Amino acid sequence: MSAALQLTVVGLGRMGANIARRINSHIDPSTPVSISVYDVSPDAVATMAKEGFTPLSSLADLKQYNNAANPQIVWVMVPAEVTAQTIKAVAEHLEAGATIIDGGNTFYRDDIANADWLKTLGINFVDVGTSGGVYGLDRGFSLMIGGDKPVVERLNPIFVALAPGVAAAERTPGKDGAPSQAENGFYHCGPVGAGHYVKMIHNGIEYGAMAAYAEGLNLLDATRNGIKHPTAVGGHTETNYDLNMAEISEVWRRGSVVASWLLDLTATAYTEDPALAGYTGSVSDSGEGRWTVQTAIDAGTPANVLSASLMGRFTSRGNDLYANKVLSAMRKKFGGHVEAKNNQDPKKK
Amino acid sequence: MSAALQLTVVGLGRMGANIARRINSHIDPSTPVSISVYDVSPDAVATMAKEGFTPLSSLADLKQYNNAANPQIVWVMVPAEVTAQTIKAVAEHLEAGATIIDGGNTFYRDDIANADWLKTLGINFVDVGTSGGVYGLDRGFSLMIGGDKPVVERLNPIFVALAPGVAAAERTPGKDGAPSQAENGFYHCGPVGAGHYVKMIHNGIEYGAMAAYAEGLNLLDATRNGIKHPTAVGGHTETNYDLNMAEISEVWRRGSVVASWLLDLTATAYTEDPALAGYTGSVSDSGEGRWTVQTAIDAGTPANVLSASLMGRFTSRGNDLYANKVLSAMRKKFGGHVEAKNNQDPKKK
Amino acid sequence: MSAALQLTVVGLGRMGANIARRINSHIDPSTPVSISVYDVSPDAVATMAKEGFTPLSSLADLKQYNNAANPQIVWVMVPAEVTAQTIKAVAEHLEAGATIIDGGNTFYRDDIANADWLKTLGINFVDVGTSGGVYGLDRGFSLMIGGDKPVVERLNPIFVALAPGVAAAERTPGKDGAPSQAENGFYHCGPVGAGHYVKMIHNGIEYGAMAAYAEGLNLLDATRNGIKHPTAVGGHTETNYDLNMAEISEVWRRGSVVASWLLDLTATAYTEDPALAGYTGSVSDSGEGRWTVQTAIDAGTPANVLSASLMGRFTSRGNDLYANKVLSAMRKKFGGHVEAKNNQDPKKK
Amino acid sequence: MSAALQLTVVGLGRMGANIARRINSHIDPSTPVSISVYDVSPDAVATMAKEGFTPLSSLADLKQYNNAANPQIVWVMVPAEVTAQTIKAVAEHLEAGATIIDGGNTFYRDDIANADWLKTLGINFVDVGTSGGVYGLDRGFSLMIGGDKPVVERLNPIFVALAPGVAAAERTPGKDGAPSQAENGFYHCGPVGAGHYVKMIHNGIEYGAMAAYAEGLNLLDATRNGIKHPTAVGGHTETNYDLNMAEISEVWRRGSVVASWLLDLTATAYTEDPALAGYTGSVSDSGEGRWTVQTAIDAGTPANVLSASLMGRFTSRGNDLYANKVLSAMRKKFGGHVEAKNNQDPKKK
Repeated sequence: MSAALQLTVVGLGRMGANIARRINSHIDPSTPVSISVYDVSPDAVATMAKEGFTPLSSLADLKQYNNAANPQIVWVMVPAEVTAQTIKAVAEHLEAGATIIDGGNTFYRDDIANADWLKTLGINFVDVGTSGGVYGLDRGFSLMIGGDKPVVERLNPIFVALAPGVAAAERTPGKDGAPSQAENGFYHCGPVGAGHYVKMIHNGIEYGAMAAYAEGLNLLDATRNGIKHPTAVGGHTETNYDLNMAEISEVWRRGSVVASWLLDLTATAYTEDPALAGYTGSVSDSGEGRWTVQTAIDAGTPANVLSASLMGRFTSRGNDLYANKVLSAMRKKFGGHVEAKNNQDPKKK
Repeated sequence: MSAALQLTVVGLGRMGANIARRINSHIDPSTPVSISVYDVSPDAVATMAKEGFTPLSSLADLKQYNNAANPQIVWVMVPAEVTAQTIKAVAEHLEAGATIIDGGNTFYRDDIANADWLKTLGINFVDVGTSGGVYGLDRGFSLMIGGDKPVVERLNPIFVALAPGVAAAERTPGKDGAPSQAENGFYHCGPVGAGHYVKMIHNGIEYGAMAAYAEGLNLLDATRNGIKHPTAVGGHTETNYDLNMAEISEVWRRGSVVASWLLDLTATAYTEDPALAGYTGSVSDSGEGRWTVQTAIDAGTPANVLSASLMGRFTSRGNDLYANKVLSAMRKKFGGHVEAKNNQDPKKK
Repeated sequence: MSAALQLTVVGLGRMGANIARRINSHIDPSTPVSISVYDVSPDAVATMAKEGFTPLSSLADLKQYNNAANPQIVWVMVPAEVTAQTIKAVAEHLEAGATIIDGGNTFYRDDIANADWLKTLGINFVDVGTSGGVYGLDRGFSLMIGGDKPVVERLNPIFVALAPGVAAAERTPGKDGAPSQAENGFYHCGPVGAGHYVKMIHNGIEYGAMAAYAEGLNLLDATRNGIKHPTAVGGHTETNYDLNMAEISEVWRRGSVVASWLLDLTATAYTEDPALAGYTGSVSDSGEGRWTVQTAIDAGTPANVLSASLMGRFTSRGNDLYANKVLSAMRKKFGGHVEAKNNQDPKKK
Repeated sequence: MSAALQLTVVGLGRMGANIARRINSHIDPSTPVSISVYDVSPDAVATMAKEGFTPLSSLADLKQYNNAANPQIVWVMVPAEVTAQTIKAVAEHLEAGATIIDGGNTFYRDDIANADWLKTLGINFVDVGTSGGVYGLDRGFSLMIGGDKPVVERLNPIFVALAPGVAAAERTPGKDGAPSQAENGFYHCGPVGAGHYVKMIHNGIEYGAMAAYAEGLNLLDATRNGIKHPTAVGGHTETNYDLNMAEISEVWRRGSVVASWLLDLTATAYTEDPALAGYTGSVSDSGEGRWTVQTAIDAGTPANVLSASLMGRFTSRGNDLYANKVLSAMRKKFGGHVEAKNNQDPKKK
C-alpha cells in the first residue's frame, strides 16, 4: 500500500466542506487520503475539526506537508472572485511537485494563466468542474477535469471517491466490461482549462433546460385566468384550466421524454410550496452562462436557446426597463398610443 | 369628367377622420369624390360635419347613395373587434355592386370569410392595410391593397389622394419613367387578404426594428452606471460613459445605416423628454405582431427576431413572472441559492 | 371480480401495438381487460393476432362489444391527420355509453370539437397525451389525461397497466403514504383537452431542452478546429481542444445538474455513432412544438427558448434561405460587401 | 484665416480614399485643410495623386509635417486587424502634440489601450465611428467621435466637411436655432472609446433591423408555394399569394412606419435583381455585431433581438450543423424517427 495522499482543502463553504467529507467517507481504503482543511473563517475550520479533519490555522501550515517523495495536493474551493489570489497565496507555501486543484467556477481561459504562472514554480495545476450542488455529498459529484495526464492520474483515488460511481445510473446500452472513468462520474477531458470549459458549457445547457421547463410551466399556469384565442374578427374561444403543477411535474418524472434531475427538483419545490409563493422571480446568473454565450459568439456558433435563457435572467431583474421605455416612446410618437394603465393580459404584474 | 365617386367613411376615430380629410384635401379635381361620414358617436359626426363632410345620422342613411350606375363605396375604419359586425351592418343597406373597404387591422384570413359572405350579396370587398399613423394626414398613408383587379382599379383616385406620392422619397436608382403605383405609395398586392397580409408582415417588421433600436439604446444607457468587464479571475475593467441619447439618436439620422422614420420619431421623443421620464415601459402589442409570428410558424419559416421582439412586449408587462419563480425554485433546490435581495446589476429595477 | 373491460385498440403502428401489448402484460389480474385490435392494414392485425390479441376484420366488428352493462372502450391511436375521420368511423358502430380515447397527438382545441360531437351520440371522450416513445413498452408510458371524472376513473386499470409505476423513479422528498396517480405515472389533468394541452407543453419543453443540449454540444465540437478569441486589435488567443463527446455526455449522466433521459439517449447515440456520421442534420418538427408557441402568443406569455428551439428546426431544413439572400443583398448595397466564397468560420459548411 | 490643418490619410481603401475626397470637396474655404495620403499599395497612392492629393512614399515622409505651431493630424483608416500596428508605425514619425484619428472599426476597449500608449509620447488620440458605406462620398458620413474635448474641437472643420449637414434630413420637430453638431451629422459622444462604443451599438442595431426586414420578406416569399394552416384535425386552409417583393419594398418607402435607408437599399437591390438570384445567402458578420452582444452580456442587459440577428448569420453559414445532427440523433433514439429524405416544407432547400 502506497503512502496516503496528502490533501488540503482550502475553502470550507458548502461545496468545499462537502468535498472534504465525501472524500473522507468514500475513499477506497487501499488508496488512503489524509485530509487537512483551511478557511479564512476559523469557525468553519473548527466545525470540520470536530468532524475529525486536521485543521490548519493559516496557509503557512501548508509547509509541514511539503515532501518531495509524496508531493502534497491542495484543493482550492473558494468564490471565483478570490480564486486567483487564493491560488497565489497557497503557492507561496508549496514546493515544486505539488499540485493545486481549482474546483471552483473559474473561466477556463483564466486557468491557463494560473497554470502558466504555477509552472514557473514547478507546481502542477488541475481544473475540476464540479457539478452536483448541495446534493453532491450524498449523490456524488460529476467531475470534469483538465490537466496533464500524469498529474491527473495521480489524483484518481480522490476523483473515484467524489464521483457517484457507475451504479448511480443504468449503464448506457452498448457499454459493457469495466466501466470507464466517465461511467464512474469523472472524466479527464483534456489539457488545462478543458475541465472548466466542459463545465462552463454544462452550465450553459443547464440555463437553457431550466428555461424550457420554466416557460412551459408558465404556459400551464396561464390557463388559470384563461387564454383567449381569436377566431374570426372580434370573436374568440377561451382556454380555462386550473392545472395542478405539482402533480404535472410529478407525472412527467416517470416514463416521459422530459424526465430529468431538474424536473425532480422542480417536483420537490412544488411539493414544498405548491404556489411558489416563496419566490419573487428575480433570478441571478453567474459567470458560466455568460461565458458560454460569449464563447459561442467568438466561435461563430449559434446558441439561440442558451442566449435567450441567459437574457431571460437579465430581464427577470428588470434590466429591460429602459428598452421598454424607448418602445413606449416610439409607439406614442407614431400611433399616439398611451401606455396601458391597467393590465390587458390576465397575468400582467 | 365622370360622376363623382360616392364614398362613405364609417368610423371617425383618429384614423378614419384623417382618411376622410386627406381624401378631401388631396383628391385630383378631375376624379372627384363626394364624401359622407358616419360614426356611432354623434359628436364625431358633428365635428366632421363642421369641416364640411356630409353627415349620416344612421347606417340606414347609406341607402340614399345606392345607385347601380355609380355604385357606392364604404370605407370601414373601426376597431378590429367590431369590424365584422360593422361590415355586416353596413352591408344591410347596400345594393349589389357596392364596395366595402376594410381599412382596419383585420387578420387577413378573416378578410376571406368577410369577402365570401359579401359576395353572396353581390357586394365587393377590398382590404387596405393602412400605415402612417397620426402623421398620415400630412405625410400621406402607405396603402397595401387586396381585392379583385377591376374593383380595386375603380378606387384608384381615392388611393392616389391618400398616398404620399412619388415625391415623398427620392426615387430608387434604376427606376425612371412614369412612377409605378408603389412609387406613389399604394400597391395592389393581390387578391382579397393580400393587402392585410402584407400589412401584417409590415407590422411584424416594425416590431423587430423597434426592438433593435430599443435594445441598442438600452445598452447605451447601461454605461451610465458602469459596465463591468471581467478580465482575469476576480479582476475587471469598467465602461463608464454618460451618453446623451437625444444627440446620439439625432446624429444617426443623417448619413448612417440605421437612419429611418422610427429613428426620426425616437429623436423627436428624446427632444420632448430626454430621460423618457414620462414612460413606465409597459408596452402593449396588437394582433399583427402576433399573427405574423403565428403565421411564420404555420409556414415553417424562422422568424427569431420577430418572435423575440413580440415576446419582449409580453415580458415588459410582467408575463414572465411565473417562469422566473420556477427558475428561482430550481436554483434554490440544486444550489441552495437564495434570491438576491439587492440588485447585483447596475440597472436592476 | 367485475366483468373484464372491453377494449379495442384502433391503429396498430408502433405506438398502438405497444399500448395493447403493455396493457396485456401489465394489467392487474383483479381488473381484467379483454383486448381486441384493428388496423387498416390486415398484416398489422394478423401480427397482433399471432400474439394472442382478438383481431377485428373491420370497424363494423366493434358492434359485437356493444353492451349497456359494460360499455366498450376504444383507444384510437392513429396519425393526427386521420384522427378525426377515424373517430367518426369508430363512433358509427358504438352505442351511447361507450368511450373513445384519443391517445394520439391531437391539438387540444380539436378535442373539444370531437368531444362535443360525440356527446350528441352519448359517447364519452377522453384525451390521453402519451409520452414514452419506443421505450414505452418496457419502461411504461407517461399519461396526461383529460375528460370527465367518472369516465376517466373507470379507465384507471388501463392507465395503471400502461404507466411506469411509482418504482420507476425515486419518490420526491416530502411525499409518503400511498403513491398518487401522478407518482404512478398517469394523471387526470382536467376536463376534455387538458390531457393533450399538458402533453403539448410537455413536447414544447422537450424541444427547448433538446436544443439546449444540441447547442452546448455544438460548442464543445467547435473546439476541434479552434475558436479564436480576439484580445487586442489584430491579436487573438485560441481554444483548441479535441473533446470526446461520447465520454462527456456519459460523465454528465451521473451526479450532474443536466442529467436527464434525453441525455441518456444522447449518450446511447454517441455510443453507437461517435461522430454522428449517420445524420445529416435536417430536423423535422411536429404539431405540438408549433402549437405550444402559437398558444403562448395567444396567452401573451413569453416563450423565447421554446420559440427559438422550434425555429431552429425550420432553419435546419434551410427555410432561412430567402431571408439570408435579403441580408446579402442589403450588405452588398450599403457596404459593397461580396458574399464570402470561402468559409471564414472553422465550422462553416 | 488660420493656417491650413495638415492632414494625412493613411489607408486608401474604399473608405479611406472617400474620406480624403469628401474632405477635399466639402471643406469650408475659411478653414482650409491640406491633405496628404499614404497606403502600403503604391498604386492606391498614385491614383489619389492623380486626383491632386499629396502622395507620401513612406510613413517616414510624415516627418516633414511635424510642426509644433500647427501639429499634424493623421487619419488611420485600415482594416481592424492591422490598425494597432499601423498606429504604432505612424506614431514613430510624429512629435508630441500630433493627433491620430482611428476611423476604422476598432473595439472601443482597444482604443483605450492605444490612447494610453500614445499619451506616453504626447500624441493625442481620437476614435471616430464612421457610418455611411459606399454612399458616404456623396451623402456624407455619420460620425461618432470619442476623445478629449480640445483635441476633438480642433478637428471640427474636418468633421463638418465629412458629415452630411443638417439639410440631409428634415429637422426634428422642436429643434430650432443654429443646428447642433449632431444635427449636422457628427457628434462628440464622450472620452476616448465613446465614439467606437456608439458606433458598435449602431452596428448592433443595424444587424437587428436588417434581420427584421429579412424575416418579414422571407414570410412574404413563403406564400409563393403556399402556407398550410391547420384548422381541425387533419384539415387545413392554405395561403397562396405570388407577391412582388420589389413593389412591396417600394410601397413601404413612402408613408409607412418601416421606411428607412435599409429599406431604400432593399428596394434598390430588388430593382436590380428581383429574384435575388445573385445571392447564395451565406452572410458574413464582423466585429461590431459580436462585441455588441458580448458587451450586453457583460452589462446584464437583455438583447434578444440583436443576439438572434447575429446568430442568424452564423446559421446562414451552416454553423448549426453539428447541433442539428445531435437533434436528429436524439429524435431517432426516443421516437425511432428517421430524418426526412424529402422536404416537408414548401421552401426546404
